Amino acid sequence: MIVVMKQNATGAQVANVLARVEQLGCRVHLSEGEERTIIGVIGNGRPLDRERIERWEGVERTVPILRPFKLASRDFHPQDTVVSINGMAVGGRQLIVMAGPCSVESHDQLLEAAWAVKEAGGCVLRGGAFKPRSSPYSFQGLGEEGLRLLAQARAETGLPVVTEVMEPQLVPLVTTYADILQIGARNMQNYALLHAVGKAQRPVLLKRGLMSTIEELLMAAEYILSHGNDRVILCERGIRTFEKYTRNTLDISAVPMLKQLSHLPVIVDPSHGTGKWRLVEPVSRAAVAAGADGLLIEVHPHPEEALSDGAQSLRPDRFTSMMRGLRPVAEAVGRTL
Amino acid sequence: MIVVMKQNATGAQVANVLARVEQLGCRVHLSEGEERTIIGVIGNGRPLDRERIERWEGVERTVPILRPFKLASRDFHPQDTVVSINGMAVGGRQLIVMAGPCSVESHDQLLEAAWAVKEAGGCVLRGGAFKPRSSPYSFQGLGEEGLRLLAQARAETGLPVVTEVMEPQLVPLVTTYADILQIGARNMQNYALLHAVGKAQRPVLLKRGLMSTIEELLMAAEYILSHGNDRVILCERGIRTFEKYTRNTLDISAVPMLKQLSHLPVIVDPSHGTGKWRLVEPVSRAAVAAGADGLLIEVHPHPEEALSDGAQSLRPDRFTSMMRGLRPVAEAVGRTL
Amino acid sequence: MIVVMKQNATGAQVANVLARVEQLGCRVHLSEGEERTIIGVIGNGRPLDRERIERWEGVERTVPILRPFKLASRDFHPQDTVVSINGMAVGGRQLIVMAGPCSVESHDQLLEAAWAVKEAGGCVLRGGAFKPRSSPYSFQGLGEEGLRLLAQARAETGLPVVTEVMEPQLVPLVTTYADILQIGARNMQNYALLHAVGKAQRPVLLKRGLMSTIEELLMAAEYILSHGNDRVILCERGIRTFEKYTRNTLDISAVPMLKQLSHLPVIVDPSHGTGKWRLVEPVSRAAVAAGADGLLIEVHPHPEEALSDGAQSLRPDRFTSMMRGLRPVAEAVGRTL
Amino acid sequence: MIVVMKQNATGAQVANVLARVEQLGCRVHLSEGEERTIIGVIGNGRPLDRERIERWEGVERTVPILRPFKLASRDFHPQDTVVSINGMAVGGRQLIVMAGPCSVESHDQLLEAAWAVKEAGGCVLRGGAFKPRSSPYSFQGLGEEGLRLLAQARAETGLPVVTEVMEPQLVPLVTTYADILQIGARNMQNYALLHAVGKAQRPVLLKRGLMSTIEELLMAAEYILSHGNDRVILCERGIRTFEKYTRNTLDISAVPMLKQLSHLPVIVDPSHGTGKWRLVEPVSRAAVAAGADGLLIEVHPHPEEALSDGAQSLRPDRFTSMMRGLRPVAEAVGRTL
Repeated sequence: MIVVMKQNATGAQVANVLARVEQLGCRVHLSEGEERTIIGVIGNGRPLDRERIERWEGVERTVPILRPFKLASRDFHPQDTVVSINGMAVGGRQLIVMAGPCSVESHDQLLEAAWAVKEAGGCVLRGGAFKPRSSPYSFQGLGEEGLRLLAQARAETGLPVVTEVMEPQLVPLVTTYADILQIGARNMQNYALLHAVGKAQRPVLLKRGLMSTIEELLMAAEYILSHGNDRVILCERGIRTFEKYTRNTLDISAVPMLKQLSHLPVIVDPSHGTGKWRLVEPVSRAAVAAGADGLLIEVHPHPEEALSDGAQSLRPDRFTSMMRGLRPVAEAVGRTL
Repeated sequence: MIVVMKQNATGAQVANVLARVEQLGCRVHLSEGEERTIIGVIGNGRPLDRERIERWEGVERTVPILRPFKLASRDFHPQDTVVSINGMAVGGRQLIVMAGPCSVESHDQLLEAAWAVKEAGGCVLRGGAFKPRSSPYSFQGLGEEGLRLLAQARAETGLPVVTEVMEPQLVPLVTTYADILQIGARNMQNYALLHAVGKAQRPVLLKRGLMSTIEELLMAAEYILSHGNDRVILCERGIRTFEKYTRNTLDISAVPMLKQLSHLPVIVDPSHGTGKWRLVEPVSRAAVAAGADGLLIEVHPHPEEALSDGAQSLRPDRFTSMMRGLRPVAEAVGRTL
Repeated sequence: MIVVMKQNATGAQVANVLARVEQLGCRVHLSEGEERTIIGVIGNGRPLDRERIERWEGVERTVPILRPFKLASRDFHPQDTVVSINGMAVGGRQLIVMAGPCSVESHDQLLEAAWAVKEAGGCVLRGGAFKPRSSPYSFQGLGEEGLRLLAQARAETGLPVVTEVMEPQLVPLVTTYADILQIGARNMQNYALLHAVGKAQRPVLLKRGLMSTIEELLMAAEYILSHGNDRVILCERGIRTFEKYTRNTLDISAVPMLKQLSHLPVIVDPSHGTGKWRLVEPVSRAAVAAGADGLLIEVHPHPEEALSDGAQSLRPDRFTSMMRGLRPVAEAVGRTL
Repeated sequence: MIVVMKQNATGAQVANVLARVEQLGCRVHLSEGEERTIIGVIGNGRPLDRERIERWEGVERTVPILRPFKLASRDFHPQDTVVSINGMAVGGRQLIVMAGPCSVESHDQLLEAAWAVKEAGGCVLRGGAFKPRSSPYSFQGLGEEGLRLLAQARAETGLPVVTEVMEPQLVPLVTTYADILQIGARNMQNYALLHAVGKAQRPVLLKRGLMSTIEELLMAAEYILSHGNDRVILCERGIRTFEKYTRNTLDISAVPMLKQLSHLPVIVDPSHGTGKWRLVEPVSRAAVAAGADGLLIEVHPHPEEALSDGAQSLRPDRFTSMMRGLRPVAEAVGRTL
């Protein structure tokens, strides 16, 4: 960490900072410029509290040098993490397409979607049983009945299942039914939930919060990793900006940026990222071209009747055609689909 | 709701939309312009699913007419809600200043802060026992021990206590100790938690998420109200923007906007809203001048030793001086402090 | 346009709105719901002033129905516009890669870059002679000397030249030297400049402002088109968000969104869009996969000595390798490079 | 500046950076931590090009230590700048309220507004003669005729006049008529224009761009100051965020932040900052309470007939009532109105 002293900081104030930093067990480097005195602080491995130091007399501000995440960082784990799910590898050469309806609505709806996903080449079935909705008057999901339908669809199609868990105390229940636990964007900083899935024996699909920086996403992953679960898949799903023609702004640069900063696999959700089904195909191609390890796509047999997010769901025939168009793009960047 | 048809929508598509909307139990109004056909949908009281309708053939988009919140809306509850806490009224003529340390750290720290708050004219003690922290390596709060210290401080000073609850299953525990349950910004859309505090017998201080719109804040309040708890206090605490000289951008216009849209009391947190203690006093004055019903302020006896958010905490002497400066501003806008 | 009346609007207020709208030469449709009266306004071809109407007594708000752009809209011009430049076609099957240094610094620097661009398959040379810099103390470009060097590079390599024009009165001078006039992001709403290039006899490369919506970009294009110049190329170059690991957030969805809304060609600038040369290659692939008609790339023979934007410039060898990697992606989406 | 080397940087790379920095005439301080080598660079007064250094081998990133503005900084000019206009002082104890219509529309409209402003205690007349409009089909202002009307209103009422100048070549013309030259938000980084008003013999009212940081606003002021004009008044007028209930998000913290960073006067425009006339009064009070040196308010005799921005303009009677309500707030913070 670097401590920048105020322009008019006194010698006593500088001496005080030096002494206190050394009391914290750190070494210091003093550098006196014409306009500012700068103090380099060499840590002892424990994190330093910048805010506290910024309150000391004569200090203007502090500047962090190291990234705050460790377990999630490629610096400390240079090789790619590959997450294995029922024999499939997320983060390897093969792209993983997870698809299915936003909400599980009925046996027929789910099975129709699941078979369409499987036939088109998707390899994981997604579907929400517990739904976070911004209005208390919207459909909130089928709950455990939805989980049972997902398990049934898995039994019939052989597709592993990813579904969202929204509360720490529901982690054991959802773990019973799901192959991958999804943490939704609104819960990316629900620390009790991160703790709970960090203790679970399931891979976690961690969606970036719509208000979260890349660094905060990696810190959320750090929570899960630090509780002992090292099977974390990151998911870029669009951030909130001033642009209103799309539901969110999909941050395509986050894909290669995350791959450079971290060893964890990265997938992209173009359905939530754009909010418009007409944009899902071109943005899916972009995600694969940018180096994503997979996709999360909303597919609904009858989007115009969907109980949630119909506007961003693909019909099965369009999903099939999208998958067909994706294959040459995958090959162009050295991947298979 | 308004349904805007595509420029080239066929007569059959228009007829289909009309028929389906009527099947939903709504009345329709057809309006054919030169360039677009517009269909006005007059609801039957139940919310309409815009996304579903946007998937129908020939539909370009839909436009909502009514605000999605009802219980929180001033349209349906014109008079101000006044929340009563141990005889104090939040939302009345008297401004309510809630102050105290970000985290409860020790008996001495908390009591020193509490007495300072009381002597300066604060009327509620704030303090975090469970702390949401973006790093798993940061101090996470004292937990139940922190709650006990808060109750002790209340017993000694007579100040009611507000503290954050982060998990649904902790609501009963926190309710045992706290006079006001705080929902933090990161949990504004943690629906399980909103449900739980909606069932609790305590007033709720609901903080706006750092990337949440005014409408989403009111929808979160709607969750709590719709579960039966009508004692909700809204809190503007800054939103995330591109500006980096301040920690967040305090949305001062949200104060009168919320007062116009809703009957619920509104308070402002300038400590998180700015992240810099030097800005807390001028922004507090601004909040009061804009019509806020109270303030939430971080006060720490020794900010330079604080375990969290030291950079934005006021020393007791500065808090006292701030309160002194606030009084004439309160009077200038017809309030008392 | 839709006029939404207040819940408690009186019959006289409704009648007044109806009368005034008809005075403006528009037809009206009245729709009375349980909670709100809605008035549909069918225009007479001239734009309506929503703000004025929103001031009328009893009006709550207005809702626009039509997009505000016409000449730029695909609704009124369904087929793709192809901009021809010295025999090349921007917006056709062939992707157009424009590349070169951020700033023209010297004859040798420019020629070295230009030959590298040409050899790698780039087809337009970019280079700044007049540079907008946020600090008055930064290098501001060589000015007309830079334009002369660009013309010389064109004469030697045969590559047409694109360069930025920053002031209306410099349009004639820059037109003398350049094949394409670039409007920079900071000037996207410099209307005097848009007017001037709208009168010029050169294609215009219009960059999206870093604070501008897709709609505002199309309105800026509308300015140029409405002044008589129909050779406009749109450029997505990243918008400003809260994310700080990248310089801007490249809005990849804007590419297919713009192609759906407008008939104008769309290119992408991943150099400014990311600000990091390590991200330029993956994001370029993404842009092509998303359907961009070309790219704008910073290439500098010695980025570590560049007078501006070195951090985002590619070395010639990396540009060559990037172009090689792009070809299969272009082919995968039915384009050539 | 601090140079952070990569974790795996070699000794040769470190030595290379040290040598090159010294060639630039700077002194260096080397600090070797466990995980990173850090190089402190002590400048020689000339600005360093961070981007160039970030391209050197082994460098991870650089961190600036000094603010990039000098002439605008309070560090180098501790006492407040007071801008004198026809005997009035902007930045002194007296608050300066500039008010008038968004656009000059006619002699009668302007004079009616001007007398209302004067009678209510406003001391500068604002009015747009050249209007930046996002649509080419909207009213673009009366041009020089508008300037003449402004001069006439000044002659009749004695109020000095502020009006926007949008093009460098119009600066001489506008200077003939106006007492203060306004740079609009869209032109905050129009450097040719900043250069031109930097050479003019008139105070400049510089509005913050709607997506510009506080630092960029101060850098824009730096442009004007560095061209010799030291009479710059800063104006906070709201920034663009995701919130849509207000037109912009007025950044109230920017007022005290700017006053701490800079010696220049700061005024606030709540009309553009909120876009809703019902919010103008409470936000004006907030601005004064936060320490603003003045206000810029839209007043129109008949807002419902205004040719631009009617929704945010106050009627004269409401402006009068607002001024009456502001006086006690001004006094409460030690100012007069």
